[in-house]
Amino acid sequence: MAKTKIVIVGGVAAGASAAAKARRCDEEARIVVFEKGPFVSYANCGLPYYLSGVIPKREDLLIVDPPFFKRRFNIEVKTGHEVVAIDRAARAVTVRETASGRRFTEDYDRLVLAPGAEAVVLPVPGAGLPMVFTLKTLEDTDAIFDFMQERRPRSVVVVGGGLIGMEAAENFVMKGLDVTVVEFAPQVLPFLDPEMAAMVEEHILAKGVDLRLGEAVSAIEEDDGGALVRTAAGGAYRADFVVMAVGVRPGVALARQAGLEIGETGAIKVDAFMRTSDPHIFAAGDCVESVHLVTGKPFYFPMGAAANKQGRAAGANAMGRAMEVKGFCGTVIVKVFDLSVAATGLSEAAARREALEPCVFYVPAGHHAGYYPGSETMVMKIIADAADGRLLGAQIVGRSGVDKRIDVLATALYNRMAVDDLVHLDLAYAPPYASARDLVTVAGALGQNFKNGDWRAITPAALKEKIDSGDDFMLVDTRTTGELRRVGRIPGAVHIPIDDLRGRLADLEREREREIVLYCAVGVRSYLAHRVLALRGFTKVRTLTGGVSAWPYDLVKHEMSQAKT
Amino acid sequence: MAKTKIVIVGGVAAGASAAAKARRCDEEARIVVFEKGPFVSYANCGLPYYLSGVIPKREDLLIVDPPFFKRRFNIEVKTGHEVVAIDRAARAVTVRETASGRRFTEDYDRLVLAPGAEAVVLPVPGAGLPMVFTLKTLEDTDAIFDFMQERRPRSVVVVGGGLIGMEAAENFVMKGLDVTVVEFAPQVLPFLDPEMAAMVEEHILAKGVDLRLGEAVSAIEEDDGGALVRTAAGGAYRADFVVMAVGVRPGVALARQAGLEIGETGAIKVDAFMRTSDPHIFAAGDCVESVHLVTGKPFYFPMGAAANKQGRAAGANAMGRAMEVKGFCGTVIVKVFDLSVAATGLSEAAARREALEPCVFYVPAGHHAGYYPGSETMVMKIIADAADGRLLGAQIVGRSGVDKRIDVLATALYNRMAVDDLVHLDLAYAPPYASARDLVTVAGALGQNFKNGDWRAITPAALKEKIDSGDDFMLVDTRTTGELRRVGRIPGAVHIPIDDLRGRLADLEREREREIVLYCAVGVRSYLAHRVLALRGFTKVRTLTGGVSAWPYDLVKHEMSQAKT
Repeated sequence: MAKTKIVIVGGVAAGASAAAKARRCDEEARIVVFEKGPFVSYANCGLPYYLSGVIPKREDLLIVDPPFFKRRFNIEVKTGHEVVAIDRAARAVTVRETASGRRFTEDYDRLVLAPGAEAVVLPVPGAGLPMVFTLKTLEDTDAIFDFMQERRPRSVVVVGGGLIGMEAAENFVMKGLDVTVVEFAPQVLPFLDPEMAAMVEEHILAKGVDLRLGEAVSAIEEDDGGALVRTAAGGAYRADFVVMAVGVRPGVALARQAGLEIGETGAIKVDAFMRTSDPHIFAAGDCVESVHLVTGKPFYFPMGAAANKQGRAAGANAMGRAMEVKGFCGTVIVKVFDLSVAATGLSEAAARREALEPCVFYVPAGHHAGYYPGSETMVMKIIADAADGRLLGAQIVGRSGVDKRIDVLATALYNRMAVDDLVHLDLAYAPPYASARDLVTVAGALGQNFKNGDWRAITPAALKEKIDSGDDFMLVDTRTTGELRRVGRIPGAVHIPIDDLRGRLADLEREREREIVLYCAVGVRSYLAHRVLALRGFTKVRTLTGGVSAWPYDLVKHEMSQAKT
Repeated sequence: MAKTKIVIVGGVAAGASAAAKARRCDEEARIVVFEKGPFVSYANCGLPYYLSGVIPKREDLLIVDPPFFKRRFNIEVKTGHEVVAIDRAARAVTVRETASGRRFTEDYDRLVLAPGAEAVVLPVPGAGLPMVFTLKTLEDTDAIFDFMQERRPRSVVVVGGGLIGMEAAENFVMKGLDVTVVEFAPQVLPFLDPEMAAMVEEHILAKGVDLRLGEAVSAIEEDDGGALVRTAAGGAYRADFVVMAVGVRPGVALARQAGLEIGETGAIKVDAFMRTSDPHIFAAGDCVESVHLVTGKPFYFPMGAAANKQGRAAGANAMGRAMEVKGFCGTVIVKVFDLSVAATGLSEAAARREALEPCVFYVPAGHHAGYYPGSETMVMKIIADAADGRLLGAQIVGRSGVDKRIDVLATALYNRMAVDDLVHLDLAYAPPYASARDLVTVAGALGQNFKNGDWRAITPAALKEKIDSGDDFMLVDTRTTGELRRVGRIPGAVHIPIDDLRGRLADLEREREREIVLYCAVGVRSYLAHRVLALRGFTKVRTLTGGVSAWPYDLVKHEMSQAKT
């Protein structure tokens, strides 16, 4: 039998994974990787940390090089070689050597497309100025690094408040720069719901970042050696340089030229075996569309861990295997200064876009037992399907232990668990690691209580709307007087400390017909109050989920009146 | 309708949970808690940390008191009251007030038994000496604390190398004491397989603990104001005091007296709704038997988080609800000095006891991306069913991120995932939190490779046995010469660096009929070597799973010969 020849376009995450896996499936095959850029298989996700010096050495980012691929895997890697066309009928690609411009043809039995994605550059005047950078590749990073070495800039505008924008902002602050972040959307980190993003926004403001939300960049002008970033809203932000981190778009030019099917997300359409519409062509990584495990719909998810999995499967399947990639939940995590910010599955907003009726609640709690020193509070938001309790998604903002809880919830999502089933998970408990009733278990208990009808929640956003629209309802703060004085209260609340509630039920009789919304610090006491009232026949009771800890709006601090009941 | 009256025996974890939940289900019910000891609902799991001062204040351990229960929940809590008998026919209990000896009868509609467990005291001479303590309750802890304040001891013998024994040893070392641990079994932490326990043993020895394994305490003698702990093996360990931490036994005296069914583990038998063999009596916490979610068999699991869940369900169900407790996977975690040690599901030994044929492999890897500073290596052991790939259990020893991976695996176990399905989990990746190919995903990929037949593993124990028994096989080290010199090699190995393997295949031809075992540092290179050989038609190839990183036996450091092929 003739040796199989596999050509791989791209040699970073997915391409390198595909090549290595292909070799592990077939020692005889000829495997050729063409990488447009000068580097292969480097630590893409580490790039922002190299700019601050957190990752001190450039060579730490460079995992392997072409001679390594040859020596270790007997794989030919040609950097500086761009595949510019595919002749599907002839099963051959046209390759252009970047340095010389020389073109040649390389035939294949199987082709794997892994060209990655490209950083989006906003189509505004001045986007091409020399002090305007993107931050996607090692070359981009080298350019910023060299600029910083030579010009000793003191300020930067980061355009974009997504994952890379946040990482860039943090690392530039660590480097001592004045950092302005300009974001088109009214919030940072679009995978979060706005009230969770608000916690991140508050944190980066506290770290000295000048955050400009809801401003669309309209032009970048050269200004005294630096740049002036102008926004449609009339803003003008001067800095010594600009980093544009406004997202990526899948590298589909080659696939499109070859007539391969493009999916509805704009990325290359592949089946669960990473096969494109041409049975001899596979694709993997930031150029492909995958499946969202919660919605079952097409999903563009250009993330490092996904690329590695897809590349591995593409490499195996190009060699005749049948390795499935089932899809992704959209799990993300990002360090933003002292915060860890993570999400999995659908946001509340995304659930609504899917025409689902989400049941939402918040769990604010310490990352380990409160009596063990160093416990840090995090806020977990749970989004479940109100119809059947199925977990749809989660978001967490906190300082420690965020990654653990999001991974447990991602595992629950993969297994299509209902939120109330979370209570059954047997998670590891010892005081330095968790609480005996830890956040995920508490979420499960809340889910059970919701399903049992023991509890009806109101979200902060819904309560805010009720307050703002002047709805007739009674808002009851069940905390202690000391907490109220120290922390403040939600506007309009009357104060009935939980321990006084039973003694004041007679006074509350006249409120039976009115809606009552209860809250406390995190939701434990207001839930008890909820039960007291519900068991006494009050039917229109709701509890503010997450209490004051998850309330993203202003509190009032002036003296409040006692309940006029 | 008459008010329901619920009597609860025990007011610490399960009892307090049951009482509070019962109240949230019924405002009218009369709820009475009898607690034998002086305290309710305290932080049991924090006790060892109070002895070292890590938890500095005693009041941090005391969560609530009887007046709080009255004020907050309208629950009557009577400490210093022991329930000494149950009259099931009359639905009444006999209560003895500890201080006065007064006895009285209290009737009930529903009874919840939550007396907890008792620390086992070894039946050896001297176990009752005044400087011999147990460490189970707050009273125990107070006694040790007072002893340490008054006597300023300099040394302690901890009898028992389980969870409490390890926590006690650490906290006493932090307090500056000379610590000897005497353990009957040949290893510490019986939920671990021996080679994983060996890592913990090495660590505590390095921390200065005098560890005596495989020694049964035969007597404790008073010795110059201190204690001399004698063992059957002839050992004699002197210390100023002794803490006996040799496990607990379920508090079943009352249940047994009342003729309630006792399960095969020796704990009270309950159904999934925490109901005993008497429909009016529920039980929860350290006194009950639960179900092991992996084996489906009765399981005694006296842990804090379990007690809270069971108590909550017992309280609800005593009030007519139907809240299920599905069981537990046996998930545990313990901090042992700088190590985090965790397990879930079955150990390899336990799987064999269940007559399962376990497929075992090890994943040694950093807790986050290696290029991001501060990555700490952990070793994960995976136990799966060789027949169908179902995950059976896992064990992890490491410094950081252990709790996260064990919780993900516990969630996988609950969902009865196969080990190869772990590859599909969409876990959160960013360099400060994980690797793009993180341990759980790698375990999934190894599982796939095992299922596909790409890979056959040999465990360290099996390889050691082959070496010791003089089997005829070829052991090949595929690392670099530098690593071999630095780290040492497994006795008998020949050296074929992975990058030389293809060039030396002709030499290896004569070994086709011999078994070849490959290894490297963690298993990546030896797996590639495995594929190279398998694809060239070598059929008797195995790879040492986990490589040198998971090898618990000695390495040899002297110069090795090149492979004589």
